[in-house]
Amino acid sequence: MSTFREDGAAALDWVASYLERVREYPVLSRVEPGGIRAALPVSPPERAEPFAAVLHDLDAVLMPGMTHWQSPRYFAYFATTASEPGILAELLIAGLNQIGILWRASPALQELEEVSLDWLRQLLGLPEGLHGQIEEAASMSTLTALAAARHARPDRRVVVCSEHAHSSVDKAVRLLELDLRKTPADEHFSLRPELIDLTDACAAVATIGTTSSAAIDPVVAIADRCAAEGVWLHVDAAYAGSAAVCPELREHFSGWERADSIVVNPHKWLFVPQGCSAFWTRRPDDVRDAFSLVPEYLRVSEDVASLSEYSQVLGRGFRGLKLWAVLRCHGQEGLQALVREHVRLAALFEGWVRDEPGWEVCADRFFSLVCFRRKGTDEENAEIMRRANASGEVFLSHTKLDGRLVLRLAVGNARTTEEDVRLAWDVLRREAAAQL
Amino acid sequence: MSTFREDGAAALDWVASYLERVREYPVLSRVEPGGIRAALPVSPPERAEPFAAVLHDLDAVLMPGMTHWQSPRYFAYFATTASEPGILAELLIAGLNQIGILWRASPALQELEEVSLDWLRQLLGLPEGLHGQIEEAASMSTLTALAAARHARPDRRVVVCSEHAHSSVDKAVRLLELDLRKTPADEHFSLRPELIDLTDACAAVATIGTTSSAAIDPVVAIADRCAAEGVWLHVDAAYAGSAAVCPELREHFSGWERADSIVVNPHKWLFVPQGCSAFWTRRPDDVRDAFSLVPEYLRVSEDVASLSEYSQVLGRGFRGLKLWAVLRCHGQEGLQALVREHVRLAALFEGWVRDEPGWEVCADRFFSLVCFRRKGTDEENAEIMRRANASGEVFLSHTKLDGRLVLRLAVGNARTTEEDVRLAWDVLRREAAAQL
Repeated sequence: MSTFREDGAAALDWVASYLERVREYPVLSRVEPGGIRAALPVSPPERAEPFAAVLHDLDAVLMPGMTHWQSPRYFAYFATTASEPGILAELLIAGLNQIGILWRASPALQELEEVSLDWLRQLLGLPEGLHGQIEEAASMSTLTALAAARHARPDRRVVVCSEHAHSSVDKAVRLLELDLRKTPADEHFSLRPELIDLTDACAAVATIGTTSSAAIDPVVAIADRCAAEGVWLHVDAAYAGSAAVCPELREHFSGWERADSIVVNPHKWLFVPQGCSAFWTRRPDDVRDAFSLVPEYLRVSEDVASLSEYSQVLGRGFRGLKLWAVLRCHGQEGLQALVREHVRLAALFEGWVRDEPGWEVCADRFFSLVCFRRKGTDEENAEIMRRANASGEVFLSHTKLDGRLVLRLAVGNARTTEEDVRLAWDVLRREAAAQL
Repeated sequence: MSTFREDGAAALDWVASYLERVREYPVLSRVEPGGIRAALPVSPPERAEPFAAVLHDLDAVLMPGMTHWQSPRYFAYFATTASEPGILAELLIAGLNQIGILWRASPALQELEEVSLDWLRQLLGLPEGLHGQIEEAASMSTLTALAAARHARPDRRVVVCSEHAHSSVDKAVRLLELDLRKTPADEHFSLRPELIDLTDACAAVATIGTTSSAAIDPVVAIADRCAAEGVWLHVDAAYAGSAAVCPELREHFSGWERADSIVVNPHKWLFVPQGCSAFWTRRPDDVRDAFSLVPEYLRVSEDVASLSEYSQVLGRGFRGLKLWAVLRCHGQEGLQALVREHVRLAALFEGWVRDEPGWEVCADRFFSLVCFRRKGTDEENAEIMRRANASGEVFLSHTKLDGRLVLRLAVGNARTTEEDVRLAWDVLRREAAAQL
């Protein structure tokens, strides 16, 4: 065990040093496909190697293949942070290795998962009485919701969503062999409620903060329609849901309190490491009916339902511990301060773009994502992005809106400062100028 | 960041101390349902708390709610170990927070996942040319396999398996709305191949090491039938597959090299922390066809498929890193030595039961699981187990075989010694005697 303490100290130093210098790394990996594979031995070692060899090869072999999600200059997709308490909670989780196949297999795992999700529910201003559980990813939360909706209305096989809904809705619908009815969006990339057709629908998905542009579907209008027709309403707030920690941003969430189920990913914009998707439902019995199946070897006498009865996966990890650690070590005030700062930085960037001749903002900005482009061709914009990313200074991604290629700047890393956002803008203008 | 170093040292010391004294804890939690929840605040804190408060409450509030999966006296379900290199790898994984939504988002994540699974393939003696990926749990690996099988033969809706197949097969079949045809097993709890009916079947699941009794289905005979009728063969070796690291145990795996897909869980018996299920397929194109869906915001120019195209989940974690660390720090020899010792200990226990009047072994033992009972009623056996578990000295679980309640002793924790197994036997005999 002295080896564990020594190896652990080295691993901890590695992580601390990494976080101290993460701003300096080229954000997007520059390795060619196959480059990491080629640098690794083709076969495993016969004899045990020291942990120091792992750390050595992490630097020597793997680091060039990292895209630095922890970098404050990461602005692609949705920016995330594994914050310090979350990282250390993962160490504790691994040390304890709790596996929640049923309640008695880890009462602490199950009850902390329930409590930490109830804490998060309160922080987001959601109503009491929701059943909460943590899934690996929004893909699983949405799959859970739609499986329950299908089970609750087996005669209806249609899921309705916006044309801008996340691909996880498409994936879940495909796995469940349902039919997806995509509804057109308006000029704000928001689902047009007057075009909703709920015929034969078991579920509708409304998104608060779409992946392309962080647009907001009209949840109240959709909830009215769903309530009238007995259709399961699932609200996908995987990215933007975290913003509801700030009361001044709650106006964007009108109606989500009426949802049958909601997904918010604390591993996106709430400083929890990868693998923490919060799922709430007001219809836990429907979820349990869709998934519960208790074989003899898991039957016990306790009169308590296991969270695994509400999930596709039997053996759940101790994810509540990392959410709990992050909520405690940031506190409500700390979470609000970070989210507010990210919204402020995004608004600042949006203003710079608006004020700059030759550039345009391409979508409403409610949260911390700015969609914009250089007035010019798609090819020019793609080339600006390619060059900016290739510089290593920043990393942005793109989408298509109204058929045009649009750049996305997503603020969400806890270490991102105004200087980092300013750098992104400087790099983009530099690369645009270099192209002319 | 100095706080991170200090907090990290405290967290590391907590884990090291925990592992040093884990043998001393009551293995099965003694808390009542709701006991942990009641000891936690009902609301999150407004202000940030120090990480030391998390560690404090981990001890003061959560520890009574732990069932100690890391204990060498844990013999329930399937015993597992988060080994030291695996624990430290989780720290690195969290520090790096790589999220593999597509190749460029972390080339290191994707390529190390591929390489470490190829290493594991070699260690298990599986053929070349298999596509490998890591899923969260066997539930997801089996779902992936059956979804691909359904996609490949859309006109066929039946999945065939043994009556002893794992509940994850039932769950996957339910989610996929397929029909499950359970085939009776023989007196060895092994599927009877002459009773297999592949009419309208898209897939058959053969198990090597069933959950109840670690029985082995006749994979060669099933593979013959599947090959003749073009049916996808999925081999579930979630628990026992790890045993194939020992050449002398490979005889139990005859035929699995012909499977269309295989699942082995390194987080069960290969010393990797929770959340590492290895999935291989010889038909990756079918898996990709069943799952791939690339929205515009994920389109990139690299000509390389992302692992997320083969999975239900979009954002995969850096699970390859912990598998890689465990394989390196144990080496082939170290893994073999541990598995061999576990099989030896189980054989020893089996011999003690066999030699003891009034007790009987209830199933063939091929690996590290012993199924046994006191000759008497189900109630007597349940009470022996209840008292043994309540003593805190050991933790065992049960199943039903041939309609009778049977106790299970699963060896699989890396710290388990002959003394621990001897203790289990002493406790069981003591509780049996106390009952008379």
